[in-house]
Amino acid sequence: MQYTLEALSQLLNCKYHGELGTVIEGVATLETATSSQLTFLENLKYRQKLATTQAGVVILRAPFLRECPVNALVVENPYLAYAKVAELFMEQKRPQVGIHASAVVGEQCQIDASATIGAQVCIGDHVVIGADVIIGPGCVIGDHCEIGNGTRLFANVTLYERVFMGDRCRIHSGVVIGADGFGLASDQGRWHRVPQLGRVMLGNDVDVGANTAIDRGAIEDTVISDGVKLDNLIQIGHNVRIGAHTAIAGCAAVAGSAVIGKHCLIGGGAAINGHITIGDQVCISGMTGVRNSIAEPGIYSSALSALPDKKWRKNHARLNQLDELVRKVNRLEKKVADEK
Amino acid sequence: MQYTLEALSQLLNCKYHGELGTVIEGVATLETATSSQLTFLENLKYRQKLATTQAGVVILRAPFLRECPVNALVVENPYLAYAKVAELFMEQKRPQVGIHASAVVGEQCQIDASATIGAQVCIGDHVVIGADVIIGPGCVIGDHCEIGNGTRLFANVTLYERVFMGDRCRIHSGVVIGADGFGLASDQGRWHRVPQLGRVMLGNDVDVGANTAIDRGAIEDTVISDGVKLDNLIQIGHNVRIGAHTAIAGCAAVAGSAVIGKHCLIGGGAAINGHITIGDQVCISGMTGVRNSIAEPGIYSSALSALPDKKWRKNHARLNQLDELVRKVNRLEKKVADEK
Amino acid sequence: MQYTLEALSQLLNCKYHGELGTVIEGVATLETATSSQLTFLENLKYRQKLATTQAGVVILRAPFLRECPVNALVVENPYLAYAKVAELFMEQKRPQVGIHASAVVGEQCQIDASATIGAQVCIGDHVVIGADVIIGPGCVIGDHCEIGNGTRLFANVTLYERVFMGDRCRIHSGVVIGADGFGLASDQGRWHRVPQLGRVMLGNDVDVGANTAIDRGAIEDTVISDGVKLDNLIQIGHNVRIGAHTAIAGCAAVAGSAVIGKHCLIGGGAAINGHITIGDQVCISGMTGVRNSIAEPGIYSSALSALPDKKWRKNHARLNQLDELVRKVNRLEKKVADEK
Repeated sequence: MQYTLEALSQLLNCKYHGELGTVIEGVATLETATSSQLTFLENLKYRQKLATTQAGVVILRAPFLRECPVNALVVENPYLAYAKVAELFMEQKRPQVGIHASAVVGEQCQIDASATIGAQVCIGDHVVIGADVIIGPGCVIGDHCEIGNGTRLFANVTLYERVFMGDRCRIHSGVVIGADGFGLASDQGRWHRVPQLGRVMLGNDVDVGANTAIDRGAIEDTVISDGVKLDNLIQIGHNVRIGAHTAIAGCAAVAGSAVIGKHCLIGGGAAINGHITIGDQVCISGMTGVRNSIAEPGIYSSALSALPDKKWRKNHARLNQLDELVRKVNRLEKKVADEK
Repeated sequence: MQYTLEALSQLLNCKYHGELGTVIEGVATLETATSSQLTFLENLKYRQKLATTQAGVVILRAPFLRECPVNALVVENPYLAYAKVAELFMEQKRPQVGIHASAVVGEQCQIDASATIGAQVCIGDHVVIGADVIIGPGCVIGDHCEIGNGTRLFANVTLYERVFMGDRCRIHSGVVIGADGFGLASDQGRWHRVPQLGRVMLGNDVDVGANTAIDRGAIEDTVISDGVKLDNLIQIGHNVRIGAHTAIAGCAAVAGSAVIGKHCLIGGGAAINGHITIGDQVCISGMTGVRNSIAEPGIYSSALSALPDKKWRKNHARLNQLDELVRKVNRLEKKVADEK
Repeated sequence: MQYTLEALSQLLNCKYHGELGTVIEGVATLETATSSQLTFLENLKYRQKLATTQAGVVILRAPFLRECPVNALVVENPYLAYAKVAELFMEQKRPQVGIHASAVVGEQCQIDASATIGAQVCIGDHVVIGADVIIGPGCVIGDHCEIGNGTRLFANVTLYERVFMGDRCRIHSGVVIGADGFGLASDQGRWHRVPQLGRVMLGNDVDVGANTAIDRGAIEDTVISDGVKLDNLIQIGHNVRIGAHTAIAGCAAVAGSAVIGKHCLIGGGAAINGHITIGDQVCISGMTGVRNSIAEPGIYSSALSALPDKKWRKNHARLNQLDELVRKVNRLEKKVADEK
């Protein structure tokens, strides 16, 4: 695969600087790219590497052009432009179409002839699988699931019964969708399981990262809207509803019946309480706990950041006496005022 | 499936208000229930929805009866009563009894004739599986495991060797029980693995949520007692012992050799240090870290809650200088006292 | 299996105290060991149990010999010495060599004749598997993976394509290696997936705990160096590089493009921000968030520890007004100074 600077400039519909005939055969980082590779500058942490890059082409924003010693493509969104170029260099090996001999398929399923059902897969009854779907080896799909066109389940994904997903989703290995929500009624000191009767509905273009778990609804459905992107090891409780185009980073947790709006960003390790509502375009920083509903767009945080242990221990001890400190200051303030 | 208000009142052995002949065909929420559906009021966050509900029947506590515009069943524990009604409406499809042709079973196993062993399952040697057990597709069960009557492993569960579980447990997909604990001895800058020789023992009526991991003991066993309920993506380290009827919410972590009492509640994302002891009836709030043993029942917390980022950044910076602030206040206090 | 005190003393090349002919048949804890079992004292939390132990032999450091009522082996590193003795008592059942009839193997693979490929395994094309490798049941291995000699994948592990690992690694069940990193470019309010073209490279003697996820690199590789030990449910983002002999405890998360040095210790539930660098021999306490690069060796912390809820709520409320408190103290200080 080879592309000239001219071809790439046309693909991205953008201005270029340098030799139109430069040939690019792959992508790399600013630091490691050679003269036949393309790279990009997006995160300004890496800006100082621009001056010494040996890349064939750098995708960058106009203000950084003067610092670029090599050919350049000038765009407004370098990361997006890079993504489009990188797609040219992805291996496009498609697994063989059809149902593998070792797969087990239940009754009354509708499996499109263009779909790929991998080895050791187990599909229940009344399952509908669309065109160009790829089901990786070892996946288990429960009864009455429906999977839209072009969706891919990587290996060892588990769908319980009545999980519905749209087109072009990517569900990574180890994902579990549709397990029972954590619904427990207390009965004289023992736990009585509350039946979990809802389903899980995923829209189009939803990505779910490795080992993430999405529980089925208790009564109504758990809903993941179009374009939502979930990273690895995320917990989505029962009845949660996530609005379109929201992205959630790894190890975050959304407790049951929480509602999250559209175009939100939830950082890694963040935790959203149950039964609260987060509005649209809310950004939750990593490791932040959200206890109450948030209506206004903006960034919200509560994460601490590491200090040398000795210093942290002192501050932490003080924090545990903070209420006393405030009272002391108030007394002092009163005393100073009284003495006047 | 249809039940009259009269039948439900008898089932729950409770008082009713309204038309005894009202027919209920399903369950729904206060907001969405129609006149042929039953709902309940437990979480008072939803109380204002009672006045406008169009449900056929609401299960509620006596004090809320006057606010209820429709038929009602009056109980002390609405959530528990709802759970019992909801069970009437659960689909009770039992997978076919017997060992699927694609399953692989080792030597000298005792598998009850009423058990279901799903497709693509792999069972080791000397495994004992009780009556009415269901082993979902793709499960792997190691040598010398024992699974009690009526227990269900959903798809793609992994049990290492010598995992024992009682009756009526529910183990969700992606769960791993019996992997090596994280036992490492330092040997001149390298890590030497410490053999993990213990087992995992689960009592009766234990639930384990999707993708949760429970390590085997190092020397003695890891023990999960009767009626314990574990949510998704929880980490249980080696040698941990959890007392009966304790419930732990998603993404919590219990480090090695911690001991947790009976009837505890551990919130989502909470973390319990290793080698400490938590007494009975202790409630740990979500996202809370527990560094030291806790003897007294009660609620314990250390979680922060999100603020607008700008405000949080200021407070966070101040927190990192808290020790200096305390010293300053102390100096000030002394100064004011001296001046007197 | 029986070993005399003499034999164990020779194995460990250490001093002994007591009857050379004492016979040991197993290991146990200080509290539970009988006269035919060996135990050890490492964690001083358990020191008071030494005086009453009924063990046949205790491995301990010299200063504790006088408190030991039974036979003893005196070493500098009791935990390491214990590990070596415990290995004598591990069951060494090796699964049968060869490829199970139910396994599916792709084209042009090189699988050593001494390797074990378990039931229901699926191996892609161009895979290389070394001598004495054990692939547990239900594993899925993508195209072009390479697995070094003596490495073991327990059941239900998933490797995407082009995952490389060295010799003597142990990869526990539910682990996913090589899934797409969380690379998303924003495109007018929608997310555009950024191709993830890198690989995952694991060195020799790497352990990966149950349900841990390690993403493939975006451009360059994700690299886990020799001797790294990862516990359960850990998230390793794309492009992360972890130096040799670093250990990371359960539920920790390392965000994309972070670089961690050699001989580091990362506590459970800790979170390392993306695009930062942690030097060698850095110890991050459990539940600590690391937002900025750390160059100096040492211990770093930011974790809170549980208080009784009422007390915590007061302190937490004060924390959220900490900036105002500091301003008040400053005003007070000025006032007192002015009055002088």
